[in-house]
Amino acid sequence: MLSKPTIGFAGLGAMGSGMAIHLVKAGGFTVYGYDVSAAQLKAFVDSGGHAAETPCELASHADVLISMVADAAQNTSLLFDDDNGAVKGLGSGKTIVLCSTTAPEFVSELRARLDAPSVGRSDIRLVDAPVSGGALRAAEGTLSIFAAGADDDVKGVRAVLDCMAECLYCMGALGDGMRAKTVHQLLAATNIISAAEGMGLAANVGLNTQAVYEHVCESDGASFMFENRVPHMLQGEWQARSALAIILKDTGIVTGAARLLHQPTPLASAAEQSYLRGVRAGLLRDDDARLVQLYLPPTQGDLVARMTQADRMMASSHQVSKATVVDLLAGIHLAAAVEAMAFCQALGVDRAIMCEIITKAAGGSRVFGEVIPGMLKADQWSLADCPQAAEYRDRLADAVDRCRDIRYPCHMAATALQQFHLADLAGKVVANTSRSER
Amino acid sequence: MLSKPTIGFAGLGAMGSGMAIHLVKAGGFTVYGYDVSAAQLKAFVDSGGHAAETPCELASHADVLISMVADAAQNTSLLFDDDNGAVKGLGSGKTIVLCSTTAPEFVSELRARLDAPSVGRSDIRLVDAPVSGGALRAAEGTLSIFAAGADDDVKGVRAVLDCMAECLYCMGALGDGMRAKTVHQLLAATNIISAAEGMGLAANVGLNTQAVYEHVCESDGASFMFENRVPHMLQGEWQARSALAIILKDTGIVTGAARLLHQPTPLASAAEQSYLRGVRAGLLRDDDARLVQLYLPPTQGDLVARMTQADRMMASSHQVSKATVVDLLAGIHLAAAVEAMAFCQALGVDRAIMCEIITKAAGGSRVFGEVIPGMLKADQWSLADCPQAAEYRDRLADAVDRCRDIRYPCHMAATALQQFHLADLAGKVVANTSRSER
Repeated sequence: MLSKPTIGFAGLGAMGSGMAIHLVKAGGFTVYGYDVSAAQLKAFVDSGGHAAETPCELASHADVLISMVADAAQNTSLLFDDDNGAVKGLGSGKTIVLCSTTAPEFVSELRARLDAPSVGRSDIRLVDAPVSGGALRAAEGTLSIFAAGADDDVKGVRAVLDCMAECLYCMGALGDGMRAKTVHQLLAATNIISAAEGMGLAANVGLNTQAVYEHVCESDGASFMFENRVPHMLQGEWQARSALAIILKDTGIVTGAARLLHQPTPLASAAEQSYLRGVRAGLLRDDDARLVQLYLPPTQGDLVARMTQADRMMASSHQVSKATVVDLLAGIHLAAAVEAMAFCQALGVDRAIMCEIITKAAGGSRVFGEVIPGMLKADQWSLADCPQAAEYRDRLADAVDRCRDIRYPCHMAATALQQFHLADLAGKVVANTSRSER
Repeated sequence: MLSKPTIGFAGLGAMGSGMAIHLVKAGGFTVYGYDVSAAQLKAFVDSGGHAAETPCELASHADVLISMVADAAQNTSLLFDDDNGAVKGLGSGKTIVLCSTTAPEFVSELRARLDAPSVGRSDIRLVDAPVSGGALRAAEGTLSIFAAGADDDVKGVRAVLDCMAECLYCMGALGDGMRAKTVHQLLAATNIISAAEGMGLAANVGLNTQAVYEHVCESDGASFMFENRVPHMLQGEWQARSALAIILKDTGIVTGAARLLHQPTPLASAAEQSYLRGVRAGLLRDDDARLVQLYLPPTQGDLVARMTQADRMMASSHQVSKATVVDLLAGIHLAAAVEAMAFCQALGVDRAIMCEIITKAAGGSRVFGEVIPGMLKADQWSLADCPQAAEYRDRLADAVDRCRDIRYPCHMAATALQQFHLADLAGKVVANTSRSER
C-alpha cells in the first residue's frame, strides 16, 4: 500500500473513539466511523472524522476496516448482517483488523466463514490485533497491540497499527494475537479485583486510603491496575472508564479457553466469581473499580473516598497496616503471574514475548517484572519452581491471617495462598517461619 | 401403553448396564441394548438382554428408547448420525427418555431439532429423566430420577422409570428434570472434592484414616459422597466406579449454566479448578476418589490406605484432630448447600421439591438436611439469612487456621470460609468468639 490507506472504524466506544480520533489527528488518516450510537458518531465527526450510516457503507470506503466493537456477537453482526453487513461493502483484497477482544477460536471461525463458499470472500485479508491500555492510552496512541496474521497482511496495516501503538508486537499466525491478549487478560482480571480487595481492606480497618494508595504504588504490591483503578475509588467516581461488563466478558474468555485446554486457572476463576457478584449487585455498567463495594459494609459504599483524609481511630485489636495491604497484593500478584505463564505455555504463546508484553501493559505488576523474567527457562510453570515463593507465601499467609482475625473477605488472597500451599505439598518450597515466630 | 413396552437402551457403561440389566431381571421387560463397546454389549446379552448392532436397529425394536450415553455430543451422534441414527429407526409416536446428564439447554435444542422440518419427527415424544445414585443403586433399581416433559409422555414411561427408581420425581415441563439435576450436581461436585480434602488432611497429619472415616460418618460432617467415596480411598482402589471425567463434565454444566444466569457459584467453581488439576495429574479416567492424591505428598499417593491401621506418631505442634476434619466438612457443606439453593432459585426449579430430592440423593449431606428445610421460606438464599451460620463459620475458621498452621492446601474450605466472611460483611451474622478465646 503506497498511498495512505483510508480507514473504516467500527465501534466508537470509550477506547474506540480515542483510537479513531488519534488516527485522524495524529496520523493524518482519512477515517470513516460507524457506531450504533448516533451521539458517539456525532462526537467523532465533530473531531474530524467522517460518518458512515451502515457497516456496509463504512466498509465501502475502507482500505483497512478496524473493528473495536465489544465482542464476538457484535463482530458477527457487523460483518455478516444480511442487509448491511460490512463484508458486503468491502472491496477486493482489503483488510479487516480485528481489535476487539474475543475468544481465540473466534478468529479462526471468522477466517473460515469468510472463506466458505456461501460467503466466498477469501480475497479479504484478516489480522487479529487486540489492544491493551485503556481509554487514555487509546486517545494518546500509546496502546500495546498484539498483531497476528499472514506476514504480508500484517505488513500492509503496520503503519495504521504503529500510529495507535506505543508497543506493537507481531505475535505470529492468525489468532496468536488473540491468544496473547487472553493470557494478558488473565492478569488484568486478577489485578483489578485484587486492587479492590486491597483497598477495601484498608478502608475497613480505618487506614488513610490516600496514604495507602501512595505507599502501595511505591512497593512490590504495585500493579498497573492498582495505580489505574484506585484513583477512581479514592474519588468515589464510578462512571465507567472501563465497565465491569468488559472485564467480565474477558474473564469468561480466559476461563473458557482454560477449560478447553484442561488448564487450571484458580485465580482467574475466583476473580470471575467476584465479577458475577458485582453483576448481582447491579454494577454491570459501572466502572470496574466500583467492585471495591463488594468489600465494604453495605451502607458505606463510599468508604474508600471518605477515608482519604486521616486515619480513623479504630479498636486496636487488629493489626492490619499498610504493609498488610502490600503483602496481600504482592502474594496475589505472584500467584497470578505464575498462573498466567502456565496458561501462556498451555496456549502455545511465546513466553519471552509474552513476558515483555505483560511487563509494559495493563496486566503488569512490580512482582511480575521482578520474578517472571528469571523463570523464563523453566520447563513448567509452578510456584514450586519459583525461588522467591517462600518469602511471598509467608507474607501472604500473614496478611490472610490478619484478614481472618477481622473476618474480612479476601477471596483472591485466600485462593492465592492455596496455590502456595499446593506448591509446598509438592515439597519444593523451603519451610519458613510460622506466624507465632514472626 | 397397555402391554409391557419393549425398551431400547443405549449406553451400557457403569450405570447404564446396571439399569438395563435391572429392567430385564427385576422388571421383566424385553430390553435391547446398544453400546460402542462390544465387551459391554456382550456382558449385557449374557445377563439376558438382546443386542442391537446400530442405534437405528436399537430404535426400531423400541417403544421406549432410553439413552444413558455420556454427554450431549454422544446423544447427538446416537440420535442423528447420518447412516444409522436412532431417530431414523424409531417408530411413530415412540418415546425417547434422556437419562444422560446434559446442559439444560440441550433438552430444548433436541426437541427443536426433532420438530425441525429437516428432521420432521414431532411425533416422537421426549422425556428428560436424569438419574442420580451411582452404579450400585443403578443395579439395584433404587436410583433417584428427575423426570420432566408433557404429562402424557411422562405417564407413558412411568412404569419403566419406576422400575429403575426408588425416588421418582416429576419436575414439570421438558428440561426441568435436567435443571434439577444441574442443581444436584453442584452439590455432587463440591462434596466429592471436599471428601478428598478432608481425608487428605487426616492422612497428612497421621490420623488413623479408618477411624476418621467412621467418626465423620456419624457426625455433621457426613455426606453421601463422603460415605460413598472414602472407602475407595481407604482401599487405595482407583478403578473408576465413577470417573473424574464424569464429574468434570457435570461441574462444567453447573458453572456454564451459572455463568449464563450471572449467578455466582464460588464453591462449584473452586471444585472445577481441582478437577482440572486432576486432569493435569493424569487422573481423567480414574475413580474421582483418587482426587485425594492432589492433597497428598507426590510420593505418597497411597497414604490414606496406609494410614488405616493406627495413628502414626507425629510432631505434636499441629492440632488437627478428627474434629477438625468434621468442622472443615460441615462448614463446606453448609456454604455449598446455600450456594446450591440460590442456584436452584436462579434456575427456576421448585425449591421444596429440590430440597427433598437432595436430602435423599447423592448430593445430600447431614448439614443440608438439618439446615435447608428450615430456610425454605426465605426470599433469597444467603448465609447471612442462615441462623446456624455463625456456629459453622467459627468451626470452619478454626479448621482453616489449623490447615494454615501446617500449610495444608484446603481450597474448598478456604473458599467456603470466604462466603461466611461475605455474609459477615452484610452485617447479619452475630459475631462470635475469635480463635484466641476458644
